[in-house]
Amino acid sequence: MSQVYDRVALIGLGLIASSMFWAMKRAGLAGEVTGYARSAETRETARQIGLCDRVCDSAVEAVEGADLIVLCVPVGAMGAVAQEISAALKPGATVTDVGSVKRHVIQSVAPHIPEGVHFVPAHPLAGTEHSGPESGFAELYDNRWCLLVPAEGSDRDAVENLRALWEGMGANVEEMDADHHDLVLAVTSHAPHLIAYTMVGVADDLSRVTDSEVIKYSAAGFRDFTRIAASDPTMWRDVFLTNKDATLEILGRFTEELFALQRAIRTGDGEQLFDYFTRTRAIRRGIIEAGQDTDAPDFGRGKAAQ
Amino acid sequence: MSQVYDRVALIGLGLIASSMFWAMKRAGLAGEVTGYARSAETRETARQIGLCDRVCDSAVEAVEGADLIVLCVPVGAMGAVAQEISAALKPGATVTDVGSVKRHVIQSVAPHIPEGVHFVPAHPLAGTEHSGPESGFAELYDNRWCLLVPAEGSDRDAVENLRALWEGMGANVEEMDADHHDLVLAVTSHAPHLIAYTMVGVADDLSRVTDSEVIKYSAAGFRDFTRIAASDPTMWRDVFLTNKDATLEILGRFTEELFALQRAIRTGDGEQLFDYFTRTRAIRRGIIEAGQDTDAPDFGRGKAAQ
Ligand SMILES: NC(=O)c1ccc[n+]([C@@H]2O[C@H](COP(=O)([O-])OP(=O)(O)OC[C@H]3O[C@@H](n4cnc5c(N)ncnc54)[C@H](OP(=O)(O)O)[C@@H]3O)[C@@H](O)[C@H]2O)c1
Ligand SMILES: NC(=O)c1ccc[n+]([C@@H]2O[C@H](COP(=O)([O-])OP(=O)(O)OC[C@H]3O[C@@H](n4cnc5c(N)ncnc54)[C@H](OP(=O)(O)O)[C@@H]3O)[C@@H](O)[C@H]2O)c1
Repeated sequence: MSQVYDRVALIGLGLIASSMFWAMKRAGLAGEVTGYARSAETRETARQIGLCDRVCDSAVEAVEGADLIVLCVPVGAMGAVAQEISAALKPGATVTDVGSVKRHVIQSVAPHIPEGVHFVPAHPLAGTEHSGPESGFAELYDNRWCLLVPAEGSDRDAVENLRALWEGMGANVEEMDADHHDLVLAVTSHAPHLIAYTMVGVADDLSRVTDSEVIKYSAAGFRDFTRIAASDPTMWRDVFLTNKDATLEILGRFTEELFALQRAIRTGDGEQLFDYFTRTRAIRRGIIEAGQDTDAPDFGRGKAAQ
Repeated sequence: MSQVYDRVALIGLGLIASSMFWAMKRAGLAGEVTGYARSAETRETARQIGLCDRVCDSAVEAVEGADLIVLCVPVGAMGAVAQEISAALKPGATVTDVGSVKRHVIQSVAPHIPEGVHFVPAHPLAGTEHSGPESGFAELYDNRWCLLVPAEGSDRDAVENLRALWEGMGANVEEMDADHHDLVLAVTSHAPHLIAYTMVGVADDLSRVTDSEVIKYSAAGFRDFTRIAASDPTMWRDVFLTNKDATLEILGRFTEELFALQRAIRTGDGEQLFDYFTRTRAIRRGIIEAGQDTDAPDFGRGKAAQ
């Protein structure tokens, strides 16, 4: 793989940025990678573990002379960061982001992009429940999707270079419209996360079932929910606040269906339950056939991952 | 490990029974293991793969002379199976089951247990989303819990032998009261399964997001839900119909909390969301510390399991 950018600046040094750094290094995609994080602690950790070729003490310093600037902070912080670096952006440079919501990021970042600088929003569909500068690894994006959300009239070279970068980091790239992105992700990620958080919260609330029992007897199902519900609170608060409409729409539909199934349980309508559970099986098969998960049984305790 | 029973009969030859067979063989816990399944097809498969020392063509034949009889059929079928074998049970034998719901199984099976035969209900908290005679493996119960739900006045020797069998198959054994069992499992397994089924159903319904998009872009969260929602429809129909009250109670609480979080999203109350998401993190840490899951990041595609 050959170099795509001479200088890349990563703003925010958490899971997504650190995985990008290791993936760019693995494939030699960038000449120099600078990095900046808000807290001195994160910058110090980054320096200690060799995350970034150069860790800077201000965002402005990190972006100076950069050909690609990647905003890797929570969705709600994108606008302020864009404003901060705006004046330091090099003409001809490309700004991108990795935020999990796209319409809101575009609305808050675009006003701060100067003439002559390109803005190509992106979202890698890859992550873990861990966060911070030490959580990244080079393989995170291998064979996962990265969605580019260019505006109409975006510079095609800027888009194609960003595509080459993500492909070089192992991802499969597609382009999508911002609103459609936000709806698809509300279904496949945002609503499921809120549901998992809620179910884990309910378990925590139930005084008759003590915490230790919930933990001790956490079977498949709940245990998976707890992993999802261990995700970063700041990131997810921002996702829900900024993808409000699509998330609420999906949750509304979810509640309707849940009521219908609760009624089937209450009235003892086994046929409705059986039919519903049969239909959902087909989706699982599709995901496995699409190579987005394996059919290996989950031993329910990460045994295979040890 | 030494032999616990001379003769064990497995009625129903799916995931749970076949895993028990391989686990008993691994540790030499039973002299002869007989087996019976309803369909000729399953019995034929069992014979071909060497599942059971002897596969019988009737349940009565399988239980004749057995010291332990294990009912491994869906919860809703337990009563009929117990009735069928009732007259053939050997005096002094123990009948147990592996059903995911306990109060209902006790109510439907106990009336068919003759004088002089012991009944010790049980529930191994281990499973995968796969089913059928070929899905079992000897390690399924290693380091997982098996809950025994003996009635008051149960024969202690019968209980202790069953405990020895489950411990010999790798499980940690505890005793619990039937109603408490059904409530704990409603929280840690039954409600989460219904929720996952529902969310996958919603995704399948949404016409603006195509099935292929849901599959292609299934991120962490939804993908985990699809695995849960791929579980056997018959088994889960029976679980919900027979653990109706506890499941509906937990779902009621879940809906209340979900409404509160939806309201927080609608009104933009980031603090409430942040606090909620922070609280649920602690439960995850507890599960990892209890050794019921590992902290290894889920690469989101079972990579580590390949
Ligand atoms: N995690 C996932 O699964 C995933 C997947 C796809 C996309 N994303 C998106 O990727 C972005 C980063 O997520 P991540 O998982 O890498 O998060 P992370 O590991 O928590 O790292 C976040 C980084 O942003 C910085 N930051 C936090 N709040 C900030 C603020 N108000 N102003 C300036 N900087 C701030 C943090 O700085 P300090 O370290 O100094 O606190 C940290 O360096 C988010 O937009 C998220 O939506 C995440
Ligand atoms: N899977 C789990 O995660 C899990 C975990 C703990 C406990 N359990 C409990 O274990 C029991 C068995 O589950 P499993 O996962 O082993 O199921 P499975 O793989 O689907 O096997 C079920 C077995 O029961 C037989 N069967 C189905 N319906 C029957 C009926 N109406 N009358 C007589 N036999 C019938 C089937 O016979 P054919 O093959 O001939 O159709 C098959 O041999 C259930 O009570 C379940 O609640 C399951």
